[in-house]
Amino acid sequence: MKLATLRQDGAPDGRLVIVADDLLSARPASAPSLQAVLDGAPVEAVGEEVVFDAADCSAPLPRAYQFLDGSAYVNHVELVRKARGATMPDSFWTDPLMYQGGSDGFLGPCQAIVGDPEWGIDFEGEIAVITGPVRMGASVTEAADAIRFVMLCNDVSLRNLIPGELAKGFGFVQSKPACAFSPLAVTPDILPGWDGGRMHGRLCIDLNGIPFGRAEAGEDMTFDFPTLIAHAAKTRALAAGTIIGSGTVSNKEAGGPGRPVSEGGRGYSCIAEQRVVETLLHGGPKTRFLHPGDQVEMWMEDGEGRTIFGRISQKVEAI
Amino acid sequence: MKLATLRQDGAPDGRLVIVADDLLSARPASAPSLQAVLDGAPVEAVGEEVVFDAADCSAPLPRAYQFLDGSAYVNHVELVRKARGATMPDSFWTDPLMYQGGSDGFLGPCQAIVGDPEWGIDFEGEIAVITGPVRMGASVTEAADAIRFVMLCNDVSLRNLIPGELAKGFGFVQSKPACAFSPLAVTPDILPGWDGGRMHGRLCIDLNGIPFGRAEAGEDMTFDFPTLIAHAAKTRALAAGTIIGSGTVSNKEAGGPGRPVSEGGRGYSCIAEQRVVETLLHGGPKTRFLHPGDQVEMWMEDGEGRTIFGRISQKVEAI
Repeated sequence: MKLATLRQDGAPDGRLVIVADDLLSARPASAPSLQAVLDGAPVEAVGEEVVFDAADCSAPLPRAYQFLDGSAYVNHVELVRKARGATMPDSFWTDPLMYQGGSDGFLGPCQAIVGDPEWGIDFEGEIAVITGPVRMGASVTEAADAIRFVMLCNDVSLRNLIPGELAKGFGFVQSKPACAFSPLAVTPDILPGWDGGRMHGRLCIDLNGIPFGRAEAGEDMTFDFPTLIAHAAKTRALAAGTIIGSGTVSNKEAGGPGRPVSEGGRGYSCIAEQRVVETLLHGGPKTRFLHPGDQVEMWMEDGEGRTIFGRISQKVEAI
Repeated sequence: MKLATLRQDGAPDGRLVIVADDLLSARPASAPSLQAVLDGAPVEAVGEEVVFDAADCSAPLPRAYQFLDGSAYVNHVELVRKARGATMPDSFWTDPLMYQGGSDGFLGPCQAIVGDPEWGIDFEGEIAVITGPVRMGASVTEAADAIRFVMLCNDVSLRNLIPGELAKGFGFVQSKPACAFSPLAVTPDILPGWDGGRMHGRLCIDLNGIPFGRAEAGEDMTFDFPTLIAHAAKTRALAAGTIIGSGTVSNKEAGGPGRPVSEGGRGYSCIAEQRVVETLLHGGPKTRFLHPGDQVEMWMEDGEGRTIFGRISQKVEAI
């Protein structure tokens, strides 16, 4: 089942719709919201078919009770640390890195990213899952069974605010503003490329209409989603509607730091990583962070070139 | 107005009631939940009066879209750092420390703290507010206007997991499990001791029936709630229902680290702080963290000895 949430004035949880396989039309859902579905409400199509337009969508969960974002593509972490001359502890290959992210209000797939370019606005292309309830101490197998939906995420990051905030030692608050999700949340049973733990497929990212990232999400994901969920649930239960992010999708290419798409590589799923590679190869970054007017697009296609989760398409606007 | 949420099977947001001034009875509220009130639903008493018992309560918001916990009592931060031989940056006196906490499921005021004593289970007595919507970039004045309710919080912390997790650099996940809130959320207009930014009153904490903390919450709070809220809203809007915590309430006494209640001092609002002071004075900690069977109580009284927010009363249970 493919679900989306349409924005509706005065309804913070929007209006839930079931989207047709061709993503061209949708029908209202019997459940009032995606959270209601996660809380156990039955969901079936009711009422008249309407034209489906991603521009009308909020995030599938416009607000959620929890967003925990992992760094499952350890290659990304290692690269970023290398650029600042820091070594990465070996434990990062066995103990997942994860942060508690803001979840009180997400951006819809076509809503603007509003910020001050001085903050160093960046996108991060990720895969995300939504869970049902997970008990404290759940096993990896139980965690796998709790995965209800899969989405794409643009985890917006404010690069110039991150060093100062992380130096304080308590993680991200100001440096991780509202992130955005794909129009569609898709159940694993109909997902091409879902293997129960990872999403196999190419995460396509264009910046201003030019290919920026073509990473394979099923490769180099050191920790799969069930492992990330079990990590999060070690000391506490997770409520239905918990979103778990993969962290920036990132591939090693031939053991090296990869190449931009323009040079025949798979590119990168965030600007920071491309800047890191530029720094490693050329002594300094060349690509600037986002400025007002820039356009970021993210999507994933199935074997026949059809968009699986719909398309994230966001313009950057000055505050 | 004094609101509480009664636990109800199959209703994750519980049942909202309006509590009488004497805290002995309550009447059902017209709004279905506290979140609905924060989203704009009118709230008035409807239906029959019932006996009010804190043991029937969940947290006022059983699950919330956001919990941001500050460290507004900088004395606490300075003491904890001093104990491990670290100096605190001067900027901590002007730039609030804050972390994104889990908010997907809170403990009710009388629900057990379940955990492994090897984790170093500790309580932290805090004041917390619930906000209405706050726009990105809100001023401190706007932030003050957004405060809707005040509560007490027991921010449960797993001390033995904190150093390893913070060393990874991304803040707390496993080391901050579900925290608990007082039975009552009280509107500022009827709160004795509320000055618009801080809650004046003695935060009473007993451990196993023995006074442990008697800190004055209105003193030594370096950053008031409007300042914490404006800090959180610098780069993003905050949704209605955002909970902002004060961090562990902590007083300086005569410029020194204070004394236990048993020695005539104001004591401490968490075990860690008492252990820090023991370490500074005697070279090592004497007080152990929580074990199964321990009982933690927190409350605050008005000038006539009446409990303002009801009483947090939690037993510790082994996982």
